[in-house]
Amino acid sequence: MSARHLAVSLGDRSYGIDIGAGLIDDPARFAPHVGGRVAAIVTNETVAPLYAARLEGTLERAGAKALRVVLPDGEEHKTWRTLDRVFEALLEARVGRSGVVVALGGGVVGDIAGFAAASYQRGIAHLQVPTTLLAQVDSSVGGKTAINHPLGKNMIGAFHQPVAVVADTATLATLPPREYAAGLAEIVKYGAIFDVAFLGWIEAHADGLLAREPQALAHAILRSCEIKADIVARDERESGARALLNFGHTFGHAIESAAGYGTLLHGEAVAIGMAMAARFSARLGRIPAMDSERLERLLARLGLPVEAPRFPVETWLEYMGRDKKNEGGRITLILLDAMGRGAVVKDASARALREFLEEAAG
Amino acid sequence: MSARHLAVSLGDRSYGIDIGAGLIDDPARFAPHVGGRVAAIVTNETVAPLYAARLEGTLERAGAKALRVVLPDGEEHKTWRTLDRVFEALLEARVGRSGVVVALGGGVVGDIAGFAAASYQRGIAHLQVPTTLLAQVDSSVGGKTAINHPLGKNMIGAFHQPVAVVADTATLATLPPREYAAGLAEIVKYGAIFDVAFLGWIEAHADGLLAREPQALAHAILRSCEIKADIVARDERESGARALLNFGHTFGHAIESAAGYGTLLHGEAVAIGMAMAARFSARLGRIPAMDSERLERLLARLGLPVEAPRFPVETWLEYMGRDKKNEGGRITLILLDAMGRGAVVKDASARALREFLEEAAG
Repeated sequence: MSARHLAVSLGDRSYGIDIGAGLIDDPARFAPHVGGRVAAIVTNETVAPLYAARLEGTLERAGAKALRVVLPDGEEHKTWRTLDRVFEALLEARVGRSGVVVALGGGVVGDIAGFAAASYQRGIAHLQVPTTLLAQVDSSVGGKTAINHPLGKNMIGAFHQPVAVVADTATLATLPPREYAAGLAEIVKYGAIFDVAFLGWIEAHADGLLAREPQALAHAILRSCEIKADIVARDERESGARALLNFGHTFGHAIESAAGYGTLLHGEAVAIGMAMAARFSARLGRIPAMDSERLERLLARLGLPVEAPRFPVETWLEYMGRDKKNEGGRITLILLDAMGRGAVVKDASARALREFLEEAAG
Repeated sequence: MSARHLAVSLGDRSYGIDIGAGLIDDPARFAPHVGGRVAAIVTNETVAPLYAARLEGTLERAGAKALRVVLPDGEEHKTWRTLDRVFEALLEARVGRSGVVVALGGGVVGDIAGFAAASYQRGIAHLQVPTTLLAQVDSSVGGKTAINHPLGKNMIGAFHQPVAVVADTATLATLPPREYAAGLAEIVKYGAIFDVAFLGWIEAHADGLLAREPQALAHAILRSCEIKADIVARDERESGARALLNFGHTFGHAIESAAGYGTLLHGEAVAIGMAMAARFSARLGRIPAMDSERLERLLARLGLPVEAPRFPVETWLEYMGRDKKNEGGRITLILLDAMGRGAVVKDASARALREFLEEAAG
């Protein structure tokens, strides 16, 4: 099976990402990590019927003893209760420290499985097999794992790098169109903050991407992971450069909170957030209006929303201020200094932001 | 306030241990770590009335905004439910990533508070203020944190080094005698596995130690932490040398399991376990019988039990086999090759072990 490979350099936590169609059927991708070990596939009710048996077969052929933990599907299950089902399954099967957790699914499964691996017996290995576009370009790279707490999203977790990521692009065929487009939003993000040439490539291959064409997908995922890995390598514990990855997210989180989670997909809220951040950048004179229009046009062409919902400015500011990366009551914004060059801005004018929100979204 | 200081070298996770009488009243010990931050004191119902208000005052004088989380006392509360009380308190107070958890208490408090710090917002700083002898010489060094799971002790946790340890020897004055002696057992352990000169020093200062004499205590704690830190620095993630620290623990865990937790203190079970491991070492010809008798004599003089309880050999082997450090069904034992020189033995004769248990403890 042909595949693209990317090495993520993080010292003794380095790992590789394989990207290609049909990889979940290829034992060679898994053997170095699971051979002779117990491999616990953690997945959900939606993904299990589609891919769990196939992956189980592959892991067994790779020399593992496979077991399966099927969780309920949905962000509302990203809780301690669900996490504990993973612990219970591992303990009941007497999985030791040489065991490996294999996350098969989207971001929620990856987050729960990753945190389970991070904390089971104080840390065992885990491998990510992301089956959504969003997870393939975002959540399976970077080592962030977490569960939600009734008092806040992603509040309990760990930084725990996987030993490998196997992104099978063929699994994207079963994704609903909205979820697929939400993944494309994150791909656009990487171009916007880091690589204007990649942004141009996305524009040139928008049709191929919309058609889920394997070659185009493989390149888009590879380049996205490369950019994310590059940024994460500079700032594994999220103290500086990594904040760039939040482009579109500060506005986006506010939109998700105000609209109620579940109304919009995360990627959709981020698409609107990116359009807003670009427009605000233009308003501050950081980029020409032409550039923010270019970004909006691309997002719209990929089937993503770009219009800000209207709600009171105070609500916007309240929700935007809740992000855990904010310091001292200041809202940190990721803006653009040029297409392909994001900037972490901690001192944006509060008045300009307020005016912008009143006009555009108030 | 006079204090002894020990630097624990673990690269970018290095930290210092301060040891001395009255340190919890000295803001200078805390200021570098808590100044300008929220410091959440995590403690329990027994320790809180004794020391929480004093430590709170010290932290405030050190420039922190202090808050207090009081947990129920006892190993049976080392659960997710109790851990969640810490998360709730942190979230309700909107503690951010710059917050610091300050563990005030024994091993259980340290374990829960440490794991809370390890996983709150994917990891914030924590500081250990151990108030039991066992915690001062053992659990506050090494970065192991955990909670229990209904299916196994210490099964959910993290390696998370503290930013500092402040061991106030004056807090040991309030320890019940049995708990105090249980701490002495761990001190003897360090001498037995690593430093025969220190073992000799303990013998020479047994009366001072039993009288809780500050100078003797400070030296014993410092040297114990030094030895533990030395071993941990060689093997932070517990793959090799760190197993030496389990001297007495494989037999000890079996005793705790068979006797039912709570009957014996952990340190008491370890004392018996060390006596057994030494006797078994002598039986295998690794050390002269004189040496194992010397160790037993010292333990007994410090008020610790050394006689193995009698229960069926199969039960011994079953419980000894459950330790998470065992591999492939083999029981790993820590034996002595000489006084002051422990050895990790993975290939001890199963027949010899069985015979020894039948005679000594069957």
